[in-house]
Amino acid sequence: MTISQRPLAAIILAAGQGTRMKSARHKVLHPVAGRPMLLHLLEAVEALGVDRKVVVVGSGREQVEAAVAGKGVSIAVQDRQLGTGHAVAQAHDALAGFAGDVLILYGDVPLVRTETMRAMVERLNRGDEPRAVVLGFRPDDAAAYGRIVADAQGVIAKMVEYKDASSEERAITLCNSGLMAVRSSDLFVLLDRIGNDNAAGEYYLPDIVMLPGATSAVIETDADEVAGVNSRAELAGVERIWQDRRRAEAMREGVTLIAPETIFFSHDTKLERDVVVEPHVVFGPGVTVEEGAVIHSFSHIEGAIVRKGAEIGPYARLRPGAQIGVKAKVGNFVEIKKAVLGDGAKANHLSYIGDADVGAGANIGAGTITCNYDGFFKYRTQIGAGAFIGSNSALVAPVKVGDGAIVAAGSVLTADVSADALALVRPAQTEKPGWAKRFRTAMQERKAKR
Amino acid sequence: MTISQRPLAAIILAAGQGTRMKSARHKVLHPVAGRPMLLHLLEAVEALGVDRKVVVVGSGREQVEAAVAGKGVSIAVQDRQLGTGHAVAQAHDALAGFAGDVLILYGDVPLVRTETMRAMVERLNRGDEPRAVVLGFRPDDAAAYGRIVADAQGVIAKMVEYKDASSEERAITLCNSGLMAVRSSDLFVLLDRIGNDNAAGEYYLPDIVMLPGATSAVIETDADEVAGVNSRAELAGVERIWQDRRRAEAMREGVTLIAPETIFFSHDTKLERDVVVEPHVVFGPGVTVEEGAVIHSFSHIEGAIVRKGAEIGPYARLRPGAQIGVKAKVGNFVEIKKAVLGDGAKANHLSYIGDADVGAGANIGAGTITCNYDGFFKYRTQIGAGAFIGSNSALVAPVKVGDGAIVAAGSVLTADVSADALALVRPAQTEKPGWAKRFRTAMQERKAKR
Amino acid sequence: MTISQRPLAAIILAAGQGTRMKSARHKVLHPVAGRPMLLHLLEAVEALGVDRKVVVVGSGREQVEAAVAGKGVSIAVQDRQLGTGHAVAQAHDALAGFAGDVLILYGDVPLVRTETMRAMVERLNRGDEPRAVVLGFRPDDAAAYGRIVADAQGVIAKMVEYKDASSEERAITLCNSGLMAVRSSDLFVLLDRIGNDNAAGEYYLPDIVMLPGATSAVIETDADEVAGVNSRAELAGVERIWQDRRRAEAMREGVTLIAPETIFFSHDTKLERDVVVEPHVVFGPGVTVEEGAVIHSFSHIEGAIVRKGAEIGPYARLRPGAQIGVKAKVGNFVEIKKAVLGDGAKANHLSYIGDADVGAGANIGAGTITCNYDGFFKYRTQIGAGAFIGSNSALVAPVKVGDGAIVAAGSVLTADVSADALALVRPAQTEKPGWAKRFRTAMQERKAKR
Repeated sequence: MTISQRPLAAIILAAGQGTRMKSARHKVLHPVAGRPMLLHLLEAVEALGVDRKVVVVGSGREQVEAAVAGKGVSIAVQDRQLGTGHAVAQAHDALAGFAGDVLILYGDVPLVRTETMRAMVERLNRGDEPRAVVLGFRPDDAAAYGRIVADAQGVIAKMVEYKDASSEERAITLCNSGLMAVRSSDLFVLLDRIGNDNAAGEYYLPDIVMLPGATSAVIETDADEVAGVNSRAELAGVERIWQDRRRAEAMREGVTLIAPETIFFSHDTKLERDVVVEPHVVFGPGVTVEEGAVIHSFSHIEGAIVRKGAEIGPYARLRPGAQIGVKAKVGNFVEIKKAVLGDGAKANHLSYIGDADVGAGANIGAGTITCNYDGFFKYRTQIGAGAFIGSNSALVAPVKVGDGAIVAAGSVLTADVSADALALVRPAQTEKPGWAKRFRTAMQERKAKR
Repeated sequence: MTISQRPLAAIILAAGQGTRMKSARHKVLHPVAGRPMLLHLLEAVEALGVDRKVVVVGSGREQVEAAVAGKGVSIAVQDRQLGTGHAVAQAHDALAGFAGDVLILYGDVPLVRTETMRAMVERLNRGDEPRAVVLGFRPDDAAAYGRIVADAQGVIAKMVEYKDASSEERAITLCNSGLMAVRSSDLFVLLDRIGNDNAAGEYYLPDIVMLPGATSAVIETDADEVAGVNSRAELAGVERIWQDRRRAEAMREGVTLIAPETIFFSHDTKLERDVVVEPHVVFGPGVTVEEGAVIHSFSHIEGAIVRKGAEIGPYARLRPGAQIGVKAKVGNFVEIKKAVLGDGAKANHLSYIGDADVGAGANIGAGTITCNYDGFFKYRTQIGAGAFIGSNSALVAPVKVGDGAIVAAGSVLTADVSADALALVRPAQTEKPGWAKRFRTAMQERKAKR
Repeated sequence: MTISQRPLAAIILAAGQGTRMKSARHKVLHPVAGRPMLLHLLEAVEALGVDRKVVVVGSGREQVEAAVAGKGVSIAVQDRQLGTGHAVAQAHDALAGFAGDVLILYGDVPLVRTETMRAMVERLNRGDEPRAVVLGFRPDDAAAYGRIVADAQGVIAKMVEYKDASSEERAITLCNSGLMAVRSSDLFVLLDRIGNDNAAGEYYLPDIVMLPGATSAVIETDADEVAGVNSRAELAGVERIWQDRRRAEAMREGVTLIAPETIFFSHDTKLERDVVVEPHVVFGPGVTVEEGAVIHSFSHIEGAIVRKGAEIGPYARLRPGAQIGVKAKVGNFVEIKKAVLGDGAKANHLSYIGDADVGAGANIGAGTITCNYDGFFKYRTQIGAGAFIGSNSALVAPVKVGDGAIVAAGSVLTADVSADALALVRPAQTEKPGWAKRFRTAMQERKAKR
């Protein structure tokens, strides 16, 4: 409640069918930066400090309800699609007993910043205390958006749908995003007063602005922030806006992105300064990369912590639970899952390290596999500090290799190895002289006959 | 022949040397979306339903002839480069006996749509029945293109080369792509009447439009559709136009492309709705991905079928003959070639599965290799339903693992395994206590001496 | 000294703190195309044939000095940040005894071409022999750059800081890059005459232009060439300009880049004609790719030579010392390091080939690992011509496989193999009938209890 002395509620409209998405998944649950659009908005209003959150659902409501379960959200149902005014009106019961300011947001307009929401509420409570605050924007191509006629102070003279606008009004570049802040004491009263005397027979939320009795105000934001999603192409567009925003932020904070446009972040990626990210890298959710670490090209990292000065990739896949120690190295074609690599440990080539603890300075040879799964349960592999696992070894978990031990190349390890010991699992090598030559001759003959 | 009651022929000019390509490969055979440019055009005219196809070749004709062998194409040879009018005239003999409409296309202008070709022919046979129909376009930068002076109905008053154009004519934005539709009864007669009284001493095809006796018409298309290729940079430009077109189409059809600009399709890629493709994915030819499947980042897929709900990658390589069953999973650093993965089967890590049948629900452990090749022949591996292949195993084909069988980790399997049996190929593990420590000491001493 | 009969010196200013980089690394040492910015400039002036190179350092000087050690560079120190004029003045002693022309460059403006530098010096010595030659440019957004008022011959009437400019002057699009060419006999004399009577109290280098007594001239270049780096975002911008320049150059020379924007070069990448590079490829330093070779998607190549017609990737990693023979193949998830692959040799799947010599036509099976490292030393593996290494083998170096020999799948090779012999390291396969079924039952019970 730092932004005003008044309680605050958010209504998020999420009843649209989203048919242009052509998806079995509800539109507002399509992810941006690895998180459903609706949850972006919920996080933003949470950061704002709202007291009440209402999501208005319609078709596909089960999916939406499941997605927000346990997040302190009230659900309001809009059974029929009778316009945005009608949708907001459905929140009436969910807001019973609430007195304060109400933000109206859209589940398919996911990039609105907390600061912008705050500015809307502050404007509602400042100076002339307008009846409503509308969020306006100036798109590159104003197209068929509703126009806002306002004075230099943002006091709205008129809001007009494009189809009803005069040519002077159409020349106005300030458009209506649909987002709005209104007092709860006004909101439902005003909604009762608007009609549906229009071609679509719908109740339009913006109509409350032009009802007689008070003036409203507009504040502006950039068009990217209110980009909406009605199709997969627009979803990709919003993802791009989000990624570009995040890339710029990372660079501002002292991260080198050699080719920012080829690097993809998740909603919660954390990168410290002097981290270098080479071209073509993907961050899934839950990643922290500490100062000075290098992420080489073609790496895919999720749910992982990369400590200071560590070196990852190229072609490293870090999966949830990977913790890569200070100055440790994970190289090409290596997958790490639920495993801790100690400081300075190395797994440089073609390995799968899952459910494992690898001690500081240990060296995991090329082609090493931890056999952590028997088809039913997962077991842990422990590799001591300074141990050396020879190439192409399979460590059948549960198994423990002591500190400083060596496992000979090609071993299938089924028993523990003592510290400082050598473990060997290796049959004798035999040779059949001339066999290869005879084989070749025979095969060439066979091939010739085919 | 649905588009008109008249027979239809296409002449594709492919005699240019393409020296700016600096390539041993003929220009029209450079691929776009994995298919030679010339074949894009042949497919488009095939879809249009042409009765005759003539390709006019010149230098490098052997390459072009080889590429169109068996495709029902007549070859006409232009020995000397005497202009586009002269090139088309070479098709005279190949079209002997043909009476109908003729489309004139260019082997290095590969993106022209069937619908556009159809519109050209329809215009030729409609209303005023113009002598020729020219395909015009309005480039961002009209530069030195020939201009078309036409009225609102598209009736051409004048066609003028840029260098001969007045400043008013240069201000015209409608340009000549060179593509044309003409009746066969007119074409060669008109070509006989044009001269080569110009600086280059060449016969220009567009000159037939301005010959006295009849008027011609222009129809317009967008500049991207008539983009031409004279250099590798223009080839990359045409590839980009094609890819952007295909990406937009995929999204319209209900596919999520998280970062469309990083995803590359082939000419025949098929994706059903609710497929999700993460950033950085390449589709080679011959791929079908069914509904709800997810293609994770850094996957490379060609000649493969991915069934409903399957999960591919990251870093999965599917090669020709890969069939991935419903809800099956192919994980990181896994290559699948000529192999069928049954429904729900998994090959999640660092494996090569070639020439194999994997039963439903089978689990292929990390580092599994099917040894399918002896240097001369390829052999098949059969893995039963519900089988479990322990990590780091090598299956020496031909070999069969029965349903529900288990192969112990690290096994080199050379004989069949019965259903529900355990197969073990594993020598005993031995330990040499303290060996590693002594080795380390010795090596450190040796290193110090160096 | 081909460009003039006069000696030439370059002063590179590198004393700025670069605080907006938020980096422990000195700004001019951040790499572009894999090479520190400062070294791009040093190479360009080297190509120009300068006699003297002075780098003016300030904060972080140790880093800069270390980076240029052994490169014939004199260091001048600017202890306090008193402006560009003051910085250049610090080069006085380093240029003691030098008489000739002086180029003044900036360590954070790394893309200036040798030809442009040459043009500046030539202009200094031509015609009216101006006192100074300033490098001007016309940015898309002139913003707050200083403006240059000059006549059609480039003779400068006035140079004016943006804040001091009249509105007419601000309408001028020609801006000052700061780069300059001046005679050594003039430079320090003029610097002594400029003052610091401005808001910042700094000595501005451009002020020497407007000192009475002689006129100066401007020559123009494109804005990309003088792009400066003050932040990571600008660093990414300069990297992009460099990459776009290099991509265009590669295509002009006859290389196919299917998606140029996804391909990243290093400063010294060499590609011959008819090389094809698929989308998503990264070239580190030191790469040569010969005619007709194909680099498939997701390959990462550094320090390697790829011979004519070889095929690399997808997902191939070539590391320093890799030499891939004519028509040889390196396939998916294969790493090659300090290894020579003979002509026609193949390593197609999931292998690590390090410190090895592989003979012509040899076939390295899937999952092969050369065990080249014992934790202390590296050893070499030699594989003869036409040898066949069975899948999933580990070759414990030092070891030698003779010409035409076969190593059976899954072998751990510790001893040499004679030419044409078969080497086998394989224990017997045993089977426990019904074991898998009993195991499953037991595990399912255990799982049910959990």
